[in-house]
Amino acid sequence: MSQSSFGNKFKVTTWGESHGKALGAVIDGCPAGLPLCEEDIQKFLDRRKPGQSRYTTARKEGDLVEILSGVFEGKTTGTPISLMVRNTDQRSRDYGNIAYSYRPGHADYTFDQKYGFRDYRGGGRSSGRETIGRVAAGAIASKILEELGISICTYTRSIGPVEIASFNKEEIHQNAFYMPDAQAAVKAGEYLEECMKNQDSAGGVIECRITGTPAGLGEPVFDKLSALLAHALMSIGAVKAVEIGDGIAVTSSNGSTDNDGFTVKDGEIIKTSNHAGGIMGGISDGSEIILRAHIKPTPSISQPQQTVTKDKEPLSLEIHGRHDPVIVPRAVVVVESMAAITLADALFVNMSSQMDKVRDFYRK
Amino acid sequence: MSQSSFGNKFKVTTWGESHGKALGAVIDGCPAGLPLCEEDIQKFLDRRKPGQSRYTTARKEGDLVEILSGVFEGKTTGTPISLMVRNTDQRSRDYGNIAYSYRPGHADYTFDQKYGFRDYRGGGRSSGRETIGRVAAGAIASKILEELGISICTYTRSIGPVEIASFNKEEIHQNAFYMPDAQAAVKAGEYLEECMKNQDSAGGVIECRITGTPAGLGEPVFDKLSALLAHALMSIGAVKAVEIGDGIAVTSSNGSTDNDGFTVKDGEIIKTSNHAGGIMGGISDGSEIILRAHIKPTPSISQPQQTVTKDKEPLSLEIHGRHDPVIVPRAVVVVESMAAITLADALFVNMSSQMDKVRDFYRK
Amino acid sequence: MSQSSFGNKFKVTTWGESHGKALGAVIDGCPAGLPLCEEDIQKFLDRRKPGQSRYTTARKEGDLVEILSGVFEGKTTGTPISLMVRNTDQRSRDYGNIAYSYRPGHADYTFDQKYGFRDYRGGGRSSGRETIGRVAAGAIASKILEELGISICTYTRSIGPVEIASFNKEEIHQNAFYMPDAQAAVKAGEYLEECMKNQDSAGGVIECRITGTPAGLGEPVFDKLSALLAHALMSIGAVKAVEIGDGIAVTSSNGSTDNDGFTVKDGEIIKTSNHAGGIMGGISDGSEIILRAHIKPTPSISQPQQTVTKDKEPLSLEIHGRHDPVIVPRAVVVVESMAAITLADALFVNMSSQMDKVRDFYRK
Amino acid sequence: MSQSSFGNKFKVTTWGESHGKALGAVIDGCPAGLPLCEEDIQKFLDRRKPGQSRYTTARKEGDLVEILSGVFEGKTTGTPISLMVRNTDQRSRDYGNIAYSYRPGHADYTFDQKYGFRDYRGGGRSSGRETIGRVAAGAIASKILEELGISICTYTRSIGPVEIASFNKEEIHQNAFYMPDAQAAVKAGEYLEECMKNQDSAGGVIECRITGTPAGLGEPVFDKLSALLAHALMSIGAVKAVEIGDGIAVTSSNGSTDNDGFTVKDGEIIKTSNHAGGIMGGISDGSEIILRAHIKPTPSISQPQQTVTKDKEPLSLEIHGRHDPVIVPRAVVVVESMAAITLADALFVNMSSQMDKVRDFYRK
Repeated sequence: MSQSSFGNKFKVTTWGESHGKALGAVIDGCPAGLPLCEEDIQKFLDRRKPGQSRYTTARKEGDLVEILSGVFEGKTTGTPISLMVRNTDQRSRDYGNIAYSYRPGHADYTFDQKYGFRDYRGGGRSSGRETIGRVAAGAIASKILEELGISICTYTRSIGPVEIASFNKEEIHQNAFYMPDAQAAVKAGEYLEECMKNQDSAGGVIECRITGTPAGLGEPVFDKLSALLAHALMSIGAVKAVEIGDGIAVTSSNGSTDNDGFTVKDGEIIKTSNHAGGIMGGISDGSEIILRAHIKPTPSISQPQQTVTKDKEPLSLEIHGRHDPVIVPRAVVVVESMAAITLADALFVNMSSQMDKVRDFYRK
Repeated sequence: MSQSSFGNKFKVTTWGESHGKALGAVIDGCPAGLPLCEEDIQKFLDRRKPGQSRYTTARKEGDLVEILSGVFEGKTTGTPISLMVRNTDQRSRDYGNIAYSYRPGHADYTFDQKYGFRDYRGGGRSSGRETIGRVAAGAIASKILEELGISICTYTRSIGPVEIASFNKEEIHQNAFYMPDAQAAVKAGEYLEECMKNQDSAGGVIECRITGTPAGLGEPVFDKLSALLAHALMSIGAVKAVEIGDGIAVTSSNGSTDNDGFTVKDGEIIKTSNHAGGIMGGISDGSEIILRAHIKPTPSISQPQQTVTKDKEPLSLEIHGRHDPVIVPRAVVVVESMAAITLADALFVNMSSQMDKVRDFYRK
Repeated sequence: MSQSSFGNKFKVTTWGESHGKALGAVIDGCPAGLPLCEEDIQKFLDRRKPGQSRYTTARKEGDLVEILSGVFEGKTTGTPISLMVRNTDQRSRDYGNIAYSYRPGHADYTFDQKYGFRDYRGGGRSSGRETIGRVAAGAIASKILEELGISICTYTRSIGPVEIASFNKEEIHQNAFYMPDAQAAVKAGEYLEECMKNQDSAGGVIECRITGTPAGLGEPVFDKLSALLAHALMSIGAVKAVEIGDGIAVTSSNGSTDNDGFTVKDGEIIKTSNHAGGIMGGISDGSEIILRAHIKPTPSISQPQQTVTKDKEPLSLEIHGRHDPVIVPRAVVVVESMAAITLADALFVNMSSQMDKVRDFYRK
Repeated sequence: MSQSSFGNKFKVTTWGESHGKALGAVIDGCPAGLPLCEEDIQKFLDRRKPGQSRYTTARKEGDLVEILSGVFEGKTTGTPISLMVRNTDQRSRDYGNIAYSYRPGHADYTFDQKYGFRDYRGGGRSSGRETIGRVAAGAIASKILEELGISICTYTRSIGPVEIASFNKEEIHQNAFYMPDAQAAVKAGEYLEECMKNQDSAGGVIECRITGTPAGLGEPVFDKLSALLAHALMSIGAVKAVEIGDGIAVTSSNGSTDNDGFTVKDGEIIKTSNHAGGIMGGISDGSEIILRAHIKPTPSISQPQQTVTKDKEPLSLEIHGRHDPVIVPRAVVVVESMAAITLADALFVNMSSQMDKVRDFYRK
């Protein structure tokens, strides 16, 4: 697991820059025999597509995915699946200040420090468009989870100060913010109008609930399922905090409250509560896995900002063009994708943890 | 990076169970020529040693480290460094209920689900004693950072509801809680007395500040420095949330506030604020790196708890023996160790990011 | 390093099937600032292109490479380089027997056993066309080596029983077999005519000599430079044996002969002989690195062969179409590419082996 | 897979120097529930122990293994297994010339070049004693293979010019050379007497045959089973060539001869020959896997050799003390161990290659 790859056995490698020829991903380690077509992936990509409401950028790109390898007669072959999305909006333009100055809140400065120079067009590799490869891979991971009866529900929990007060799953796909509370969605819209009027932007919280996970996923020490999920979510550009289960609330709780007891129901051992968010000692316990990613406000805002050029000249930078006042809604499917990829990988890694099961596997 | 190892180039593998013969770590990828002796490591281990105050367990183990390989004439040789701490408190005893029931808040149930059975003595591999290997490795990573002028300051930010109100670095090692605020430490003590009276336990927040880091560490996509640090911290048993910089506070901030501007001071480009916590686009920007780990209350409490046995019989479990009412103070050095290991690894992984620097390196 | 990737820091992932839409590679970990254009890669690909002599298949594919990411204004950016070659000869045809029977000497049976089914068109993923991705990546690795003054000379040492008797570097690119001996090339041609007349095929030996390598590359135990090179070469489909330096000849030699002594020349320590082939204890010693890959005869031959169908029916299989009677000449650039990739990776992995050098690197 | 570790899922990390405190290995990824005791490992270690005949060094070390973690109540727990062998022969002595000159045929020079200095006592990390960790791990891998009905037979095929002419499995453990031909063993002994008289040493060939392997192991491209085995074997210090199946002989064969046909016997598909050595397209085909490792003559010989000191002074070096005139017999168990480790790892990696089998695994 390093540089541009994620996962041990279900390994995702993404490539591509915002304004390069194309973006894509190679998925290595997908089992053979999974039914897969471009439509399965396109559905996921459409959830992150810009231009879906007045709160997301209007760039009208199709973001159409092409499967280049790894699928034969409608099923995966077990060999690497190469996915590509051509960039259609590649017309040459004047990047002006952006080419030689450092946008606050962006990776311009750190890329120059690390690499000596950078592809400044639209943020290059540090652009949110890089997540196209993740979401395409996430669609495949989700199909695997589905085959095993695991489902993921991801939604916006808050935008700026506006938090959901109720939960209606049906509502999630009914509003522009993917919020499970229609009233909160209305208030979030009002808050964003205010932000836009101020030439400003907002952040928010995305929550992810995973049901149907078998117990036993995750490794006991460094590769705890919780650690892998934190890695996965914190690798999304704008995420600044990650919580599992009760998260930060545990620090002011007590052991007697926070501990989840056990009981037996219908002949199965279950927990009497789920403060842990489905992961105990880093290993899934079979109950619902609960994650939260905290997203910072969009760094691109149109009001003037203080910065410097590469040559150390001060500059009052104004970023023109249309930018999302909040990226939270479009990031919902990115969070879901990273969670799905992490789970799929953990499922495969876990398969050799008991000698009896290994023996059964090969004796069949 | 998988199972019991962490890191790509500075790779740490830990091994050992709470009541096995010994615990230890193998550190692979430490450069040759670093001065190193057992005392360097012992100092770190002593910071996590039990029995240092009435709020930590009284188990009087020396936890003496032995360097078994990788050091010759006082310097590392570039080959694997094997470290071992013998368990001295290994006397056979009756584990009673614990051997066949599931302690709430512990990994007993998930280990049984994953592996089919478990070493139940003192939590086996899921015990806090596993961190001995991490801290021993962290001591070496810290020596490397020191050689490069990087320093880490780690302390307790809160215990239960008691948060620090001031910051005095000198104070950190003056109280049993590693808090930089003497008054808060007194209040924390009072709060813990209350918890102990109630046969209950508390959690808290650990904060880590890293200064002197060169810009350019971390990889742009999955292996963002922030993602690696989140992975590292969330891999510590009791951590349920991780924050970088302003963390969860960013979600209710605005872009105009959250963005860190740039200016020039003494001929160097610096940031005008540090909401990002020293990491932009996943890459270190040269300013202070700020992390917070949120720790849950100690799961072992002496009041009766509802659970079940392996055979699905209900049980009211009482956990006897002395347990820390809070693990936060002893976890401070564990957080510091994981941060140091992550940084050391990022330093080495980064060494080939510019062709010119590669050429210089080999042309010298 | 697993499944479809090779390398630790300079990591190559290939994808694609013989008759799928495209084949390609993602190169992750190439330093920023390396001048690179499509022409650099095309030159390498042209060396493995079919249809260059009457001893190679006539399939007239252009195999034109497209750089999709990772290069900006003529230089690598340090982010993943995605390369693609479209398959132009994708017309649907009748694969007849091949779709449901097992060709002797091919991977048909083992793919079916591993994956449950397979893409039978032209061998799918097990086709020699998979090496397109390797060669494209090898071209980039070679550019890196060139920048550091390292050069690789690869050629055919024997075809069937015909071995070179002299070495003229200029001759290598003057004959269809990449042999450094014009007379041997004539004899090899005669031998192949004989094979073709018999509807049969031949194997051969490829030798690779690498000069200019700095001492110190390779890791002392499992990742010896020799072990990595053996892995790299043996991962090429038809290779059945790999030798380093004197190779198999060492087994009948004696220590007094096989040991390379040391002496001083022009103030530098050099070896008095090079039986070791440039690698001592798994680490490069600065002298010429010498490798040999032994290639089996092309398995596709037109004479009838005994096999069975998936349904266990016996079948006398005749493979129609034109096939190379020997793949050795086209494999020369594949061997060179794998050697270059391995060296480039070893160079980057080695960069942190001395603490003093790490300090210099960051203190500059 | 890097530096001092080998394997993806069954990962072996070795540590230790010839004259350090101890040597050992950590085995990570061994499934839970495998019966294991120190005796299982000791048996393997005893096969590489010095002092077993007059052709091996007389150093009377017990090389007694201690299991430090990962085993509870006689069974593996699924957590890392830490193994240690104390060095008992650690008395301080005068290393004389060896400390500051470069022994021909050894890694002294390359270690100095890579690391700036080295542990010169007995070769340090590059000593054959490093293989203690491999053999201890190999014993565990072999137990896993045994549980799955896979067995490995390893023996000496030749010593110097003396090759076996017959094969009697019973004979292998009856002579000092592990040769399956009693007469050849006698001749080998005579040849070694001659070498010793000349203050010289010999090499040889080790062959390894693995039966009972399921079809489907190995990955199609870079991690072919053949490539992994070549990596494994070539990582043993003295190995200079590796062959699979017919190996180098294939280069002068023809396709019609080299191709293994298929037929059906007792309702099962089998091959009509096994030139491929059990691996087709990099994947096991279910027939016998055949490997050969070519071992160079012991570099330590007592006759004077030409070398230089660190300070570039010429030196006629005489290496005193007793050294094996041939290391082949003691390397037999090292080759077997590396093959077993590679197979065990491939077995676990293969478990997620078919979606149907993944589904069955989790639905049980």
